[in-house]
Amino acid sequence: MNGAESLIRTLADCGVDTCFANPGTSEMHLVQAIDGVEGTRAVLCLFEGVCTGAADGYGRMRGTPAYTLLHLGPGLGNGIANLHNARRAASPLINIVGDHAIHHVAYDAPLTSDVVGVAETMSSWVRRSRTSQGVARDGADAVSATLQRNPGGVGQVATLIVPADCAWGPSNGPTQPNPSPVRAQVSQEAVDTAVKNLDGDTVLLLDGDGLGEEGLIHAARIAQVTGCRVMATTFPARVEMGPGRPPVARMPYFPEQVLEAIGEARHLVLAGAEPPVSFFAYPEMPSSLVPETCDVVRLAHVYEDVVAGLEAVADALGAPADAGARNEERRPEIPSGELSTRHVANIVAALLPENAIICTDSGGGGAAFATVGTAAPCSFLNLTGGSIGQGGPAATGAAIACPDRPVLALLGDGGAMYTNQAFWTQAREGLDVTTVIFSNHQYNILEVEYRRLGVNEIGDKAAGMFDIGNPDIDWAGLGRSMGVPGAQVATCEDFARELERGLSQPGPYVIDAIV
Amino acid sequence: MNGAESLIRTLADCGVDTCFANPGTSEMHLVQAIDGVEGTRAVLCLFEGVCTGAADGYGRMRGTPAYTLLHLGPGLGNGIANLHNARRAASPLINIVGDHAIHHVAYDAPLTSDVVGVAETMSSWVRRSRTSQGVARDGADAVSATLQRNPGGVGQVATLIVPADCAWGPSNGPTQPNPSPVRAQVSQEAVDTAVKNLDGDTVLLLDGDGLGEEGLIHAARIAQVTGCRVMATTFPARVEMGPGRPPVARMPYFPEQVLEAIGEARHLVLAGAEPPVSFFAYPEMPSSLVPETCDVVRLAHVYEDVVAGLEAVADALGAPADAGARNEERRPEIPSGELSTRHVANIVAALLPENAIICTDSGGGGAAFATVGTAAPCSFLNLTGGSIGQGGPAATGAAIACPDRPVLALLGDGGAMYTNQAFWTQAREGLDVTTVIFSNHQYNILEVEYRRLGVNEIGDKAAGMFDIGNPDIDWAGLGRSMGVPGAQVATCEDFARELERGLSQPGPYVIDAIV
Repeated sequence: MNGAESLIRTLADCGVDTCFANPGTSEMHLVQAIDGVEGTRAVLCLFEGVCTGAADGYGRMRGTPAYTLLHLGPGLGNGIANLHNARRAASPLINIVGDHAIHHVAYDAPLTSDVVGVAETMSSWVRRSRTSQGVARDGADAVSATLQRNPGGVGQVATLIVPADCAWGPSNGPTQPNPSPVRAQVSQEAVDTAVKNLDGDTVLLLDGDGLGEEGLIHAARIAQVTGCRVMATTFPARVEMGPGRPPVARMPYFPEQVLEAIGEARHLVLAGAEPPVSFFAYPEMPSSLVPETCDVVRLAHVYEDVVAGLEAVADALGAPADAGARNEERRPEIPSGELSTRHVANIVAALLPENAIICTDSGGGGAAFATVGTAAPCSFLNLTGGSIGQGGPAATGAAIACPDRPVLALLGDGGAMYTNQAFWTQAREGLDVTTVIFSNHQYNILEVEYRRLGVNEIGDKAAGMFDIGNPDIDWAGLGRSMGVPGAQVATCEDFARELERGLSQPGPYVIDAIV
Repeated sequence: MNGAESLIRTLADCGVDTCFANPGTSEMHLVQAIDGVEGTRAVLCLFEGVCTGAADGYGRMRGTPAYTLLHLGPGLGNGIANLHNARRAASPLINIVGDHAIHHVAYDAPLTSDVVGVAETMSSWVRRSRTSQGVARDGADAVSATLQRNPGGVGQVATLIVPADCAWGPSNGPTQPNPSPVRAQVSQEAVDTAVKNLDGDTVLLLDGDGLGEEGLIHAARIAQVTGCRVMATTFPARVEMGPGRPPVARMPYFPEQVLEAIGEARHLVLAGAEPPVSFFAYPEMPSSLVPETCDVVRLAHVYEDVVAGLEAVADALGAPADAGARNEERRPEIPSGELSTRHVANIVAALLPENAIICTDSGGGGAAFATVGTAAPCSFLNLTGGSIGQGGPAATGAAIACPDRPVLALLGDGGAMYTNQAFWTQAREGLDVTTVIFSNHQYNILEVEYRRLGVNEIGDKAAGMFDIGNPDIDWAGLGRSMGVPGAQVATCEDFARELERGLSQPGPYVIDAIV
């Protein structure tokens, strides 16, 4: 058995059996190994950012990693933007990156590149295999690294670089998986301190597992007995929402809005979250968005057992097990007339199927956060790292991870363009992903941010850099060119009809919603 | 005047006035500055790999840099693959990358990233500005760095990271350009040694400026009097070809073919080239492809004045000024019937307009190298670094650099998919780029390489990773969705008709050639 097969078998033995692949020549032995290992699934993506974003979506839904298969430094480089997002999402994710044979690197052949350097910019764990006998152990260690939550970092992106000779050389067969890592527990002192600081003047800020169903329930119990406000961070990786689940508001985006949301609160208790900071710096704005009059108290780091911490606090406060508010089902009416971002959000809520996964990126996806919570139980995945082009790939990976759940990708037109190749993989795999493109033909946020600089007269060249019309992108045509059917709509009635169509058919569908 | 304006004005004063832009919020002051500086052109690209590949194409045609405008680590990351190719092409290219304000980085906001780390993987020169007063000087130094050819590296990619506060803070206005760098000269000793080693058993291997019109003429003079063979490296950045110019053969791709091409030669004289090495490593193949019986002699490094070196050798050998073979004009007949890669190459040669720029990537573009040399004078640009997805962006940049020359992009379907967003920029700017997609619905090279491993039975999963059909990509539809008209063809007659159409109309056109 060669090193490649020992690695792929070890990954499968660790439960890591899904590969989002864009291989090249130096990965051919790894392709051969995947071909031969029963149960391992290879999902071809035609751009590496789709591989990494899909693995992120998969990891967020499964809690265990998929792996990418990428081609040297440039291939990994094409995946960096979505690795950045995955790192911010604390997603478990493995990159298997082929490299030249060890003896070949010194010859500086055209594809020779600083693979370790590229990997280190976005990975919590990087290793370059040294022998074909060791590559199986390296793979098992990579799996452990993705699941190891520790104070070293919130990211669980692990990158294993496999020189071609470590793949083609002889191995000793697969290795035993490592023991599962033990989750760090919240200290009694942190629980006690949180209890003392929770009252009607407190914001309880959740992220990570705190936004799962259990975490939200314990947070609602705490709110019930203390009167505190429960909030999510601005861009959490995943939130469980819907009727029967506790309501949760999000921190807004702009710094002055965050300061207003915190308002007169005297305590900010962090459960899996970090203190709020401004997304970008502005000349006259503070970076930290915690008012000086507000004390920050940490209950749990993201790498600690946030749910157990919240439960301990709720129990210490004597909150009954079933206390706290729950969302009631309440669907908006379907509006009529010309479409807008708000109308799209309402129609999505009106028609949302049970148990959907919603993936948002830039654009109007965030507007749906406010409407779907009372519509139907769903998992809501956000763009965590601000690098747009993540939603389509994440939706692709989420659909592979959860084949029985409908997936809805709500994407801005600017963001969707970076990784439009995701459509092709959705078509090939027949994935139940309905994509809604918020087509405003603009990098709208940039025009907003530009005006925040005090520039109210926008010259032609600046306008040209915000305008992604001229020509307008025909998203239905773009999807069709990659095998995804779809339609363009400009009215609420048409959007509702097409959304129903997309949701009711099993494969992918794209709706170009002119907003 | 703020730092941003001082930077953009300084770049313009240095003759650097073309920006391939994909900005975000942290670049808004730079956008404002570009808006206000007359003569500076902003070309919006909807993916950063298009920006970097276009700047590479521009740099190869102009010999002076354009700049990209990119958004923090993830934005630069999306551009890495084509920066790798640009580095291998020794193209002058500047990246201007926005970053958080210096004081904001410590707060670890979502887009905080290791911008310097990303930049260092592919740049010869990296600087992060420290003050708004210093950013103009940083810009002038970046320009110098792109043109500085020195033993430190063949790459001329310079990356300047501009924290937002260095853009918005006050400056002292633009700074003076640095003096132009002096090109290193070839030593007399190197000339003498080359002269001694040039005879009928010599291969004179050219790259860099050696493949410009003048370099080729001096090489032809040398060949005329010594009987040496003149060859280009496998993937040179740019070759000047066509009737009236000297013929030049390329080193082939596979290692056994390279060894055969060098054959019994006893001397290999390098003029701007490096000794040939295998593109990838194979278990039973050497990395170095210079036979032990062949001595390697260096006339000129790529950073030295290769043309002057070749001229000195030709003069020392007493070669007449106009000696040496020249290509005669000889166009192939237009074949008929079912299309193939070879037929495409012949039809391109049959219909090639004068003075075209041909950009190749993966796929059948290389086949045209053998046919266009006798067709019409042209500049032939190759994929230098093996990271596919470069040809479309390079064609875009070449068309911006040389608006009076027709551009022909010959791209594999797999490669073109990585950076399909190039179509949109071609449509917006009305660029005269005719794209030919070699649609074989495969990563054909991978299947070839796989079989070279001795695997003759390809399982379903491996086949699925080489097959980019299922669904087939409709390239005419994809182009149309971004504003580029086109057609799909499967016969020689149809291809010839569509190629004539594409070449005769001024804007972009795409031909999906089923081969």
